[in-house]
Parts: sequence; structure tokens; C-alpha cells
Amino acid sequence: MKLYDAAASGNCHKVRMLLSILGIAHEVIPINLPGMEQKTSAHMARNPLGTVPVLEDGDVTICDSQAILVYLASKHGGEAWLPRDPVGQAKVQQWLSFAVNELWNGPALARANLLFGRDIDLARAQAAANISLAVMDRHLEANDWLALGRPTIADIACYPYSALAEEGEISLVPFAALAAWFERIKALEGYVSMAGLD
Amino acid sequence: MKLYDAAASGNCHKVRMLLSILGIAHEVIPINLPGMEQKTSAHMARNPLGTVPVLEDGDVTICDSQAILVYLASKHGGEAWLPRDPVGQAKVQQWLSFAVNELWNGPALARANLLFGRDIDLARAQAAANISLAVMDRHLEANDWLALGRPTIADIACYPYSALAEEGEISLVPFAALAAWFERIKALEGYVSMAGLD
Repeated sequence: MKLYDAAASGNCHKVRMLLSILGIAHEVIPINLPGMEQKTSAHMARNPLGTVPVLEDGDVTICDSQAILVYLASKHGGEAWLPRDPVGQAKVQQWLSFAVNELWNGPALARANLLFGRDIDLARAQAAANISLAVMDRHLEANDWLALGRPTIADIACYPYSALAEEGEISLVPFAALAAWFERIKALEGYVSMAGLD
Repeated sequence: MKLYDAAASGNCHKVRMLLSILGIAHEVIPINLPGMEQKTSAHMARNPLGTVPVLEDGDVTICDSQAILVYLASKHGGEAWLPRDPVGQAKVQQWLSFAVNELWNGPALARANLLFGRDIDLARAQAAANISLAVMDRHLEANDWLALGRPTIADIACYPYSALAEEGEISLVPFAALAAWFERIKALEGYVSMAGLD
């Protein structure tokens, strides 16, 4: 399979992590985000939203990092990373939505502004990030993993943009439970890092 | 089961629609959003994000409208509304993420500003909405339903805030395929409406 990827993207990093953890052979095709390659007609034909990551597996094309995690976990991970029972599935989905809304509109946008000049309201994104990271931190004071008693794609989906928060000038110092969870993630077999995470 | 609900919330309406379509008996408990009841300690104990909807089913509590759709579809809908194969699951997830990001940050926030005075950048939300609704419209020119050849929770998740776009002063006139899809949704057995949708 082919991953259309950008090294600096936390959304792409979610997919790189699960591909590595599950040991899935794949080809990485870099997309030049500063050069706006993601908005070219060639890439928009793969993904009309003009974003990365995009996964191609034979004639199947999946866009959106959460959807790619669902695909890979369902196809290659059995129930280990994405359960099939209603409660487990829903608990994972809660955190996939949290990754898409709270972590994107908070720490990810703050980082995108400071690293890549993305035109957003930095103070608003940082304030939202502090609220969202505090919710995660309180949850992780009582739980080793976000959705279930084991790591799932919920943890992978929420990891990059929370762990990269300081690149958005959001201090992680107040969040001890989050820091301990980062260490548990880093200890997963097959874990891979990216610039800014270590 | 109990649904903590607000009549004017499109996110709650997604859940009301699936509960009705699947014929699931439930009790509705109104949460007074203008009175900020969603931020009281009683409600924050159910959902630390302080939002609606929240579903309680015995000792299970599910927050986030997409996660509630996953729960209800998985527990009560068989595979009709949420498939179990990797491609089908991932195609549904793409649109659940689209509901959480593109439709929330576009038409839903524009509506929240104009109807409820939510402090956001209206012009930015309206511009984002026009891009996102155009992507949906082009997709629906070639497809009757968003994710698969039949209605799924992807359609339910994306319906309220796209169909309510004009309450955010975003014209739906350019989007003929979207309008035809709204009619297909309204023809589903068990469909329920809300203020602003008819």
C-alpha cells in the first residue's frame, strides 16, 4: 500500500505509527506541503479536501487519518486496536472525535500557526488547547489508556498533537498524567518518533 | 436509555434521528443550553467536555454524537447502519470525521454565531462552509449516499449541520445534489425533523 505523507504532519504521524506497530509493508510518497502539492489536481483527485494523509491499498483510497487508523486496525489488527463490541467501539470513537475536534482546533492549530504560518487565532487555539489537554490529563489520572484497558487507535489518534503541544507554545508542565501516558506510548513495540516528539 | 438533549442542537438531532429510525425506546432529558446547564457539575460529571448529547444506557455513558451513533448502530442496527468490513468501516469514519471537523468548523459554527451569539469568526466559518458543502455536493452528484450504496450513520452524522446551513446565512442554492440528498434523508422510514429543517 501507498501512504501519501508529510514528515511534519501529526495526522500523518498517527498513520506512520500504526503501520509500524502492525508491521505493514508500505511505500511512502512525500507530499510537499510548503509547496502546496496537497492542493494540486493530482492530489485533489485522491482527496477532494486537499489534505494528507491519504492511503491507497490496491483500488481502495482512504482519506482522513482517523479513517485510515480504522481501516488498518480493522484489516490488519484483529480486535486488538479496534474492538467490535458496541461499548468498546463507541469509547474508541469518542477519542477519535476528540482528536478531530478538540486536539485539532487546539494544539494542532496553535502549532500550525507558529511553525507553518497558518492564519488562525493563536490565543483562541491555545486557550482551547489548555482546556482539552486538562480533560485528557484528568482522564489519564484514572486510566492508563484513553478508551479501554489497553492501547487502541484512540491513543494513537490523540498522541501526536497532544505530545507536540509545546511547538504551539502550550506548556505541558501542568499535565503529569499526560506525560506518563506519553511514556507508555513511547514504550509500545513498533513505536516510531517524529521531529518535535523527543 | 436516557438522552441528555437540547432541541436546537444539530448534534443532538443526529441521535434523535437514529433513535427514531431504529425504534429504540428512550427518555429525553432536556439540558438548558442558554442557561449553561451543560457546564454544571452535574452535567460535567457525565461529560467532562460539558456538551450535549450524552447517552446513558444502564451503567454505560457515551458522549459525542458520532460515538453515540456508533454505539446505537452497533448495538441495535446490525450492520445496516455501520458495516464491519475494513473498507466500509473506514468509508463511514471518513464522513464521521468530516461531520466533526468540516461541518462543525463551517456551517455549525456560523449557525451558532447567528442563532446563539457564539463568539467565533463568522466570515471564516462561512467561507469554510462553502468549501466543505461544495465537496459534499460534488460527491453526491455521483453517489446517492455518502459512504456506501445505502444510508449509514455517515449520512445521519452529516445531515443536520449541512441541512441547517442557511441558519448560518450560507446559501444552499448552488448545491443541487445536496438538496436531492436531503430529500432522500427525509424519506427514510422513521425520519424526524427539527426546527429549521423544513
